[in-house]
Amino acid sequence: MNVTVHGRSQSVRTVTFDASKNSVLLIEQRLLPHEFKIIGTKDFQETARAITDMVVRGAGAIGATAAYGLAQGARAFRGSDTKKFAAHVEVVFKTLAEARPTAVDPVNAMIGVRREMAKGVTVAEQQSLALAAAEEFASEDVQHCAEIGRHGARLIRNGMNVLTHCNAGWLAFVDIGTATAPIYAAQGQGKRFHVFCDETRPRSQGATLTAWELAQQKVPHHIIADNAAGHLMQRGEIDLVIVGSDRVLGRTGEVANKIGTYTKAVLAARHKIPFYVAIPHSTIDWNLKRGFDIPIEERHEHEVLGAWGVIANPKPAIRSPRAGQRAYVRVANPSSPARNPGFDVTPAELIAGIITPAGIFKPKDLWKNRHKLGYHG
Amino acid sequence: MNVTVHGRSQSVRTVTFDASKNSVLLIEQRLLPHEFKIIGTKDFQETARAITDMVVRGAGAIGATAAYGLAQGARAFRGSDTKKFAAHVEVVFKTLAEARPTAVDPVNAMIGVRREMAKGVTVAEQQSLALAAAEEFASEDVQHCAEIGRHGARLIRNGMNVLTHCNAGWLAFVDIGTATAPIYAAQGQGKRFHVFCDETRPRSQGATLTAWELAQQKVPHHIIADNAAGHLMQRGEIDLVIVGSDRVLGRTGEVANKIGTYTKAVLAARHKIPFYVAIPHSTIDWNLKRGFDIPIEERHEHEVLGAWGVIANPKPAIRSPRAGQRAYVRVANPSSPARNPGFDVTPAELIAGIITPAGIFKPKDLWKNRHKLGYHG
Repeated sequence: MNVTVHGRSQSVRTVTFDASKNSVLLIEQRLLPHEFKIIGTKDFQETARAITDMVVRGAGAIGATAAYGLAQGARAFRGSDTKKFAAHVEVVFKTLAEARPTAVDPVNAMIGVRREMAKGVTVAEQQSLALAAAEEFASEDVQHCAEIGRHGARLIRNGMNVLTHCNAGWLAFVDIGTATAPIYAAQGQGKRFHVFCDETRPRSQGATLTAWELAQQKVPHHIIADNAAGHLMQRGEIDLVIVGSDRVLGRTGEVANKIGTYTKAVLAARHKIPFYVAIPHSTIDWNLKRGFDIPIEERHEHEVLGAWGVIANPKPAIRSPRAGQRAYVRVANPSSPARNPGFDVTPAELIAGIITPAGIFKPKDLWKNRHKLGYHG
Repeated sequence: MNVTVHGRSQSVRTVTFDASKNSVLLIEQRLLPHEFKIIGTKDFQETARAITDMVVRGAGAIGATAAYGLAQGARAFRGSDTKKFAAHVEVVFKTLAEARPTAVDPVNAMIGVRREMAKGVTVAEQQSLALAAAEEFASEDVQHCAEIGRHGARLIRNGMNVLTHCNAGWLAFVDIGTATAPIYAAQGQGKRFHVFCDETRPRSQGATLTAWELAQQKVPHHIIADNAAGHLMQRGEIDLVIVGSDRVLGRTGEVANKIGTYTKAVLAARHKIPFYVAIPHSTIDWNLKRGFDIPIEERHEHEVLGAWGVIANPKPAIRSPRAGQRAYVRVANPSSPARNPGFDVTPAELIAGIITPAGIFKPKDLWKNRHKLGYHG
C-alpha cells in the first residue's frame, strides 16, 4: 500500500526480499505509528529474531518472513555439497520455526518452500528455487487478500460507517490485509464511507496500527474507545462490522479473534448490524470440533495495567517531562492485579458471513464448501 | 472507609470539614491511585476551584463539598449586619454553583443549607445553622449509601464474581459509595467473593479509583480490559454486575452512565447475568420522558488518543526515561482523530433492579414507588 514519508508517497509491502543483498526487508512495526522505518536483516538468524521480537507480526506477514528467511539461509550456503547443504537448510528451518512456536504460518510457508526446493538437483538450483517459492508465497498472500477485497467490497455502500476491531490490515499480511481489504477495495471503486476504529485495549493495535494504515490510505476514520461502539450502534452510527481472525473452525464456523471481538458481535446482533469476518484459507482450522477448546492465551498483566506511547502534552495536561520520548506509563492502581485473556471466541450464530478468497460463506457452510476453501483432509 | 498510608490504617471520608480552621478537607483525587493526600481549602473560592479542577468529583462528593463550601463562606463573614451577610452568602452560593455548571448536586445541596440557615435570626445563628446543615447533608449522604449497601448486600453470595464499571465508589460520595456499597456491606458480613473491575477507558476510573478503593479495603479483585468481560461471562466467570449512574429516568427506568455501561448490560442479558444499578434518590430524574433525550457529552479526543499514568518499567519495556514521573502518553496514530462520547443509556429491559436507599425496585416500577423515592412533584 502507499505510505507517505516526509511528504513523499511510496508503495511498500510489509515483507519483501532484496536478492542482491540477500536480505529480508521488514517494516519495523514496533516503531509504528510514531515512526516509519524499513529494516533489512543480514542473515536468517536476524530474520528469526525479527519474528520473535515482533518487528513483524500477523499471520500472513510472519509466514512470508519465514519463507524468505528460509531462502535467505539457503542462499547464504557456500559450496556444492548437496548433503551439507541439506543439513544447513534443516538448521535454518528449525531456527525460523522456533522463532514463534505457537504460530502455524511460518512452518506451513517453509514446508511449501522446501517442497519446491526438492525439485532442484544442484545446490545452485535449489537456492534459486527457494527464492522463487518464497516470492510465490508472498504473491499468493497478496492475491488472496485482493480476492477478499473483491468479494467484501460489495458489502460497503456509499455513506456507510464501518466498524473494525484490532489490526487485520496490510501490516499483518504481505499487503492489503483481510479485514481492511474490503475497505481498500471499496475506496478504489470510488465509494465514500467512514471507518470507526476500535482502540482495542490492552495493546491498542486499532489506535496504533489500523488507524495508521487508514490515515496513510486517506480513508476517513475516527478512533473510538472499546466502550463506545454500543452507544454508536444505538444511535444508528454503525452500519457494518468487519474483523479478521486468528482461527476459524471449519466444522462449526466459530471465530477466535482479539479480545473484545465477541462483545462487538453481541452488540451487532442486538442492533441487527451485519458482522463479517475476513480471512485467508490458511486461517481455517478443519480439525478442532469446539470453539471452547481453542486455547485462550492469558497475556502479561502489564498490558492491562498501563499503556505504551510517546510522551506528549495534551490539553488537559498534568506535566510532560520529556515530550516525544517513548514510554510505558502505569495507569492502574499499583497494588492491583489484572486478568488479561488475549482472545475470545464468537459463535457462528452472530456472524453474517466469512469473507474468503473463494467468496463469502455463512459460517455454518464452511465445511460444506471445504474443497473450495483449501481443505486437504 | 479505611486507607493505609505508610503502613498506618486510618478511617477517612472523601469530604469533611475542619471547623477550627474553617476549611473543607478533600482527598486530592487527581493524585490517586499513585499518591494519597488530603488537602484543606483556605476559603470558599478555593473550595469552588477544587470542584472545577476535579480535586473532588462524583455526585455526592461535590454536593457535600458545595454544602460545606457555603458554610465555610458564611462563617468567614465578619460583623452582624444581616443584610450585608445575606448579600455575601449570595456571592458564595453563586461562586460554588458556577464551579461545575452542569452538575445538579451542588445547587441542590446548597438550597438545603440555605433553607436551614433561614431559620436563624442573627448572623451568628445563621452561620452556626449553615455548618449544622452541611454536616447533616454529609451524614445523610453516608446514611443513604449505607442503606444501598444493606439492600444490595443480599445480592452477593459466597464465591461470586462481581463485575463493576467505572467508579461509583466512596470517592464519588462522602463515604461508602453506591455501586461499591453492596460490596463493602457484604464484605462486612464476612462473605467471600471476588470483584472484576473494568478498566473503563478512556479515563480509566475503574483501573485507577475503583481498584484503589478495593485494594485499600482488601477486597479481592482483578482489573480487566473493557474488552474482556464478554469472554469472562462466556466462561461463567461473572455472576453479577453492579454499576452506578449519572441519571436514572424515574418515568422509564432508563439509566445513563459512563460509556460502556450499555455494552456490559447487553452482554449480561445474553448470559442471563443479573445487572443492577445502585443510586441515591437524588440521581433520579422525574421529568425527562425519553432516555434518547439525555444529552450525551462528547469529551476531548485526547482521552481516547492517549493515557495518563506514571512512567514505569514493565517487563516488555521499550525504555523508561524517568520512572515515577507523571506523564500523558500519546498512544494512537498522531494523524488520526477520535470520537469520545462520555456516557451511554441503558434501557430498562436490560436491568434486573435499581438498588436505592429505599430498597431494590424493577426499573419500570420507579414511578409507581416515587413517593418512597424522594419525588416532590
